[in-house]
Amino acid sequence: MPEAEFIARLRDMATHPAARGLLDDAAVLGDLVLTHDMIVEGVHYLPTDPPADVAWKLVAVNLSDLAAKGATPEGALLGFPLREPAWDKAFAEGLAEVLRHFGLPLLGGDTVAAPEKAPRMIGLTAIGRSQHAPDRRGAKAGDDLWLVGRIGDAGAGLAVALEKDGIVQRWQDASPRLTEAYRRPRPLLAEGQAIAPLVHAMADVSDGLMIDARRIADASGVAVSIDLHAVPRSPELSAFDGDDRIAVIEAITAGDDYALIFAASALAAPKIDALDIGAVRIGRFTGGSGIALYDGDGDDVPIPAVLGFEH
Amino acid sequence: MPEAEFIARLRDMATHPAARGLLDDAAVLGDLVLTHDMIVEGVHYLPTDPPADVAWKLVAVNLSDLAAKGATPEGALLGFPLREPAWDKAFAEGLAEVLRHFGLPLLGGDTVAAPEKAPRMIGLTAIGRSQHAPDRRGAKAGDDLWLVGRIGDAGAGLAVALEKDGIVQRWQDASPRLTEAYRRPRPLLAEGQAIAPLVHAMADVSDGLMIDARRIADASGVAVSIDLHAVPRSPELSAFDGDDRIAVIEAITAGDDYALIFAASALAAPKIDALDIGAVRIGRFTGGSGIALYDGDGDDVPIPAVLGFEH
Repeated sequence: MPEAEFIARLRDMATHPAARGLLDDAAVLGDLVLTHDMIVEGVHYLPTDPPADVAWKLVAVNLSDLAAKGATPEGALLGFPLREPAWDKAFAEGLAEVLRHFGLPLLGGDTVAAPEKAPRMIGLTAIGRSQHAPDRRGAKAGDDLWLVGRIGDAGAGLAVALEKDGIVQRWQDASPRLTEAYRRPRPLLAEGQAIAPLVHAMADVSDGLMIDARRIADASGVAVSIDLHAVPRSPELSAFDGDDRIAVIEAITAGDDYALIFAASALAAPKIDALDIGAVRIGRFTGGSGIALYDGDGDDVPIPAVLGFEH
Repeated sequence: MPEAEFIARLRDMATHPAARGLLDDAAVLGDLVLTHDMIVEGVHYLPTDPPADVAWKLVAVNLSDLAAKGATPEGALLGFPLREPAWDKAFAEGLAEVLRHFGLPLLGGDTVAAPEKAPRMIGLTAIGRSQHAPDRRGAKAGDDLWLVGRIGDAGAGLAVALEKDGIVQRWQDASPRLTEAYRRPRPLLAEGQAIAPLVHAMADVSDGLMIDARRIADASGVAVSIDLHAVPRSPELSAFDGDDRIAVIEAITAGDDYALIFAASALAAPKIDALDIGAVRIGRFTGGSGIALYDGDGDDVPIPAVLGFEH
């Protein structure tokens, strides 16, 4: 895997403690939280997606990283390749909208000329501050695994977006909230800020609940198990995809949720419940390594071959 | 000009004081200095440039922005599209080398999959701290225009790199220091830190001495004039390109120098000279607007049609 080799090489360079071994959602330098995410045309968004939605997603995915560190956003820098005036203009309008929505100041960045027809690669750096930035590496055996936010809606929304000209009735009946979840994810900033002081580890769910839970476990040197019956699914998702085990597995292996998952001791549970932000316990961290699934009765469930979106 | 419209739209969004109206080399948020530059294959570097030189340039152009704000670098975030294992590996080796050279910690970033043959768009965010970050907008009528660093070497180096298979003897005789200046520019960090507390305005010369001097003047609401005879040119550049007026105009309109220019009052001159960093006075800011050139005898010199690299 040449990509793994490249990333391993970067990890060798990233010896500063603020880099957190490149294992976390963001760099944490004192009280500063810094993240940089790129989105690539044809990889992270569909070429047919409305440009304003692309701008939304670019900002939201970066803010979700800040949310996972409990940070208050302070500003952003944009890296944008200019290529097609009408598209670029619509992107700028969408960017203005999403920055206004989240009260995020645009502080700087770079616009560059791009060769005609070159797939766009758009970057955003988001800067925030956090007094308690939880590490991805802090989960302990005995901790509960918690989730706040919706799981699977965005994955279903992507399926609907890809198949919108299909003739199958259930695609046509799908709630617009599913495609909305895919195109305009909501970073859980207030939730992240409230949770951060109470937890041992936190991360956002960007590539799929299973893979991101496993990354916390791997980074922390523990194992994680998830109770399939405890994973909440929205009414819109149930209506679209049913509630059988295949549908649940689909939801927990789909990407783009931008929910938050975190590890906390049993002692913290009353305080987390008292926040009243819809956080639910969906599993546990234990000694060992790897990930396990079980259903409500405690029976093991086979692990799917693909845990989520690997990149 | 659709690009100008896009940038105007971004300026409308960038109302936070830290953005400095997007007129400066970097954002300045308290003592934090933040910059993000992208480089695009086929636009900012030649597809045949060695990947390690591309990594060098990416880091150097960002550090040059920090230098212009008198900042001490604290770290960087990389946005990198993975496309071709051998190239990517060589880039990583070069990145390790340049980060080590400048003592710059890699703090984070993002690696993304890129479609095959998509031109690479690589981003870097650099973060630094400065107690005295000069603005580009602070030049006053009566200030001297100063330069530190070499002008024109990189432009000549690019010409040599593009023509290396040519049969003209003078290309073959060109000093390797010229192509080195193009491929491995040296950001003037120590110089910028020393100068910053003494000046009214400072910027790096990335797109050409004339255009960048004019940008200081425009941003500050004053005019600038440059004495052609006062602009120092290296012995290597003189040997390559001669010393006539055409050669001097070429030098001051070529990009990629990563020198520093700054505005300072006459009272600051002894302190600047005492720094002994090779800073020289090359012109003056006056009331009015625009840019003028004159030679040592005070005669006006016609302004070239193209002042530098517009992007």
